[in-house]
Amino acid sequence: MAFYFITGNENKFAEVKSVLPKVEQLVLDLPEIQDVDATEIVEAKLLEALKHKEGEFIIEDTSLYFNCLNGLPGPLIKWFLKTIGNQGLFNITDKLGDNKAEAKTIIGYAENKHQVHFFAGSIKGRIVFPRGDSNFGWDPIFQPEGYSKTFAEMNSEEKNAISMRRIALNKLKEFINNK
Amino acid sequence: MAFYFITGNENKFAEVKSVLPKVEQLVLDLPEIQDVDATEIVEAKLLEALKHKEGEFIIEDTSLYFNCLNGLPGPLIKWFLKTIGNQGLFNITDKLGDNKAEAKTIIGYAENKHQVHFFAGSIKGRIVFPRGDSNFGWDPIFQPEGYSKTFAEMNSEEKNAISMRRIALNKLKEFINNK
Repeated sequence: MAFYFITGNENKFAEVKSVLPKVEQLVLDLPEIQDVDATEIVEAKLLEALKHKEGEFIIEDTSLYFNCLNGLPGPLIKWFLKTIGNQGLFNITDKLGDNKAEAKTIIGYAENKHQVHFFAGSIKGRIVFPRGDSNFGWDPIFQPEGYSKTFAEMNSEEKNAISMRRIALNKLKEFINNK
Repeated sequence: MAFYFITGNENKFAEVKSVLPKVEQLVLDLPEIQDVDATEIVEAKLLEALKHKEGEFIIEDTSLYFNCLNGLPGPLIKWFLKTIGNQGLFNITDKLGDNKAEAKTIIGYAENKHQVHFFAGSIKGRIVFPRGDSNFGWDPIFQPEGYSKTFAEMNSEEKNAISMRRIALNKLKEFINNK
């Protein structure tokens, strides 16, 4: 049975492929429902994907949760980036006086529509004034707890060593190996 | 041809029915795509509705746009209300030092999938500390420009006289009458 990671993001695909060599990339534009629960969003996409194609699928959501906004932006982060950017996101935490944040990945794995499994990984950190370049949207403002660099200032080895995506991926790998 | 306003909200239905007496209420749970463009969201819902049922449909989106967040929350307002509430919304504008906002309704009218029309109505105002009760979510924090009451402190006559929904509705009514 073909095993697909549905993403248009080459960086994310490379990271997943390095942990799960059998996975193939599938670019499929699936509607993203409005929700602040990433698990619901990922599940809706997986169920939609199963209608379109044969195979097993994985989909990931990596979101940024602000303490000062009681969990927002969460999965809505891309709209915050589009409207106010990293500078605007930093500004909110700065003005509200609480820069604590959590970066969280949810990976959903659908064997079929009745067997959908979720794996989470998260890392705590702080929102800082943007530093460093990155292809990943909010990496310049997220500084993991215990580190002096933002994600955007780390190379991929440094970042993968503490990545929330890597934590979730390793749980998925263990699940698949024990099937 | 049956003519439906798709909504689960009795208050909104009563307001639309008073302007367009022929309209019937249809409660249909349509997926809401993630976007900050209300027109895109309404259009996606209308096209989905047309797949499920015969008829002509109207769907409305009323959203709240903050100047200090470059247009957010916009159509994502319900998630802001769910996570941080009216107090949290006020707090953002207060701490960011800019309480200007705009309340905007988009009404989409689908005669069929090839003929979808949009009508907008908007009203400027300020975000204030919550005052008054309301069934409408953010009415307690929205004070229209030139008024000393929030929407939640107005009775329905006062509110309808300046309502962004009424402005959009009247445009729709004129369009239908001139067909």
